[in-house]
Amino acid sequence: MISKLIEKIKQKNAPIVIGLDPMLTYIPKHIMDAAISEYGETLKAAGEAVKEYNKGIIDATCDLTPAVKPNIAMYEQFGIPGLEAFEWTVKYAKEKGLIVIGDVKRDDIGSTSEAYANAHIGSVKIGDKELRGFEEDMVTVNPYLGSDGVKPFINVCREQDKGIFVLVKTSNPSSGEFQDRKVLDGQLTDNDGMMLGDLVLNGTPLYETVADKVNEWGKKCMDGSYSNVGAVIGATYPEMGEILRKKMPHSYILVPGYGAQGGAADSLKPFFNDDRLGAIINSSRGIICAYQMEKYSRFGDENYADASRQAVVDMIEDINRIF
Amino acid sequence: MISKLIEKIKQKNAPIVIGLDPMLTYIPKHIMDAAISEYGETLKAAGEAVKEYNKGIIDATCDLTPAVKPNIAMYEQFGIPGLEAFEWTVKYAKEKGLIVIGDVKRDDIGSTSEAYANAHIGSVKIGDKELRGFEEDMVTVNPYLGSDGVKPFINVCREQDKGIFVLVKTSNPSSGEFQDRKVLDGQLTDNDGMMLGDLVLNGTPLYETVADKVNEWGKKCMDGSYSNVGAVIGATYPEMGEILRKKMPHSYILVPGYGAQGGAADSLKPFFNDDRLGAIINSSRGIICAYQMEKYSRFGDENYADASRQAVVDMIEDINRIF
Repeated sequence: MISKLIEKIKQKNAPIVIGLDPMLTYIPKHIMDAAISEYGETLKAAGEAVKEYNKGIIDATCDLTPAVKPNIAMYEQFGIPGLEAFEWTVKYAKEKGLIVIGDVKRDDIGSTSEAYANAHIGSVKIGDKELRGFEEDMVTVNPYLGSDGVKPFINVCREQDKGIFVLVKTSNPSSGEFQDRKVLDGQLTDNDGMMLGDLVLNGTPLYETVADKVNEWGKKCMDGSYSNVGAVIGATYPEMGEILRKKMPHSYILVPGYGAQGGAADSLKPFFNDDRLGAIINSSRGIICAYQMEKYSRFGDENYADASRQAVVDMIEDINRIF
Repeated sequence: MISKLIEKIKQKNAPIVIGLDPMLTYIPKHIMDAAISEYGETLKAAGEAVKEYNKGIIDATCDLTPAVKPNIAMYEQFGIPGLEAFEWTVKYAKEKGLIVIGDVKRDDIGSTSEAYANAHIGSVKIGDKELRGFEEDMVTVNPYLGSDGVKPFINVCREQDKGIFVLVKTSNPSSGEFQDRKVLDGQLTDNDGMMLGDLVLNGTPLYETVADKVNEWGKKCMDGSYSNVGAVIGATYPEMGEILRKKMPHSYILVPGYGAQGGAADSLKPFFNDDRLGAIINSSRGIICAYQMEKYSRFGDENYADASRQAVVDMIEDINRIF
């Protein structure tokens, strides 16, 4: 799957992904009003408005971007109608030739993690039929439960040519609370006390320990020169990105936090390899909500999708400047 | 919400929760066949079979158990029809007077984590209406992203009297890969190198660092003598449970891993406080799949729910022996 994503990135000369994370406050008034007048003040109205809103953005940008990344939380908040909008968005984006990265951040153990993997990138067997739930191409995975949580996803990646991005160092301010904690290499027992002098100097942040695992998992899941097991590292932490880039040479890095969250293009270089590949930069609000920004206000609410298109053009230009 | 759960635990003298984690291999043939003959080999058939199966177990055990814990992964694998079965199960269990713990293990950042919280224990505003998605009473939350991921859930707990259980030390074999890593207290810089000799001896497992945060978060969310912010600790790690029990005196501990995963009743005592409260033990397969075990095979497939009821009676007796 990663080779398919790379092909589209080269084709469009755009190492970017659009985060389709619809908040009701992002949806233009005319779309929300129409949905409410047809379905009333219901979850169904929210779901239908989200579809309409996403359709406009996908139609206006699908020739420019290789991929979209809907965050399922923004759909799940509207219950079943919201998840129907998620399902619809995944299918529609794929029809338009886009790679769909489901930002689901799922994680559980054993058969339960396998169920999540099957739900989003795999399939389930009902009687003699193999059926699919949400049909994304790739998903994000949380590593807290260790290999038991990630391996079921990796198995599906292998069997069905899909991909995952494991959360390594997230873009949010509090990501350091646990991810940055310095861990001692190796599992220590108290008896190791006397030997610890050196080990301390080897104390590394937890996110590096996770990165080492991602690299190990990735080697078993290669697809061309890159692995179907990638990583998520926030644009807000470029120094860490530089270290992690080297630790996971074959893992694609999904980089959120560009634009709205404060990450600047110049700080994105460390996430890429010398082949100008290895990273894909996400922008959500900065694209789907462009029409609400002063810079693009000339487009107006009605033409929100044109504003998104212009924001994508500007983002691609901004990012390609670094090469 | 935790006070409501405690009241039901005392009422039924049963510190237990039934994990409603339906795998198709658990569902009796007559139920699956009926669903397929009505809906064909479809996801809809799976969803309907799950509802029928869960209804039998809920009806047969709702007078014995204070709560059920459906793991959403097992429903999500069947796409929208599966999630409709999840929604139905939550509503039906609440109608039967049970507390519903949604085992969703969600985690994201800021407004996205807020969306997850609203989806499961909160509400969203559509026009002038406050509407609810899945309506669980409590949910499980993954801590990897730090406070940014957990606080939106805590805010909803405060505003709407709901509860969460944060994953601290999970029951699976590989949980130690990251959760057990010894971390140095405090965020160290390389300059601290010389001082580390002592700190090493203070190096504590990551799960203790997470537990300290849970305790801190919990203090701001008290509901009687316990907090609406609880923790998940696997029955498979009783020694850790004893340490963590003391670190989070006001947090209820949700304990998976009893029975099928190998945790024995004798090893559950450390998870409880002296007031005989503070822990709720989950069993999934051991209850919902009892009819497939030799011990309960006499009930037969048709009477799978009676087998589940007997397994609950036995579980309660087994656990109450420890007091």
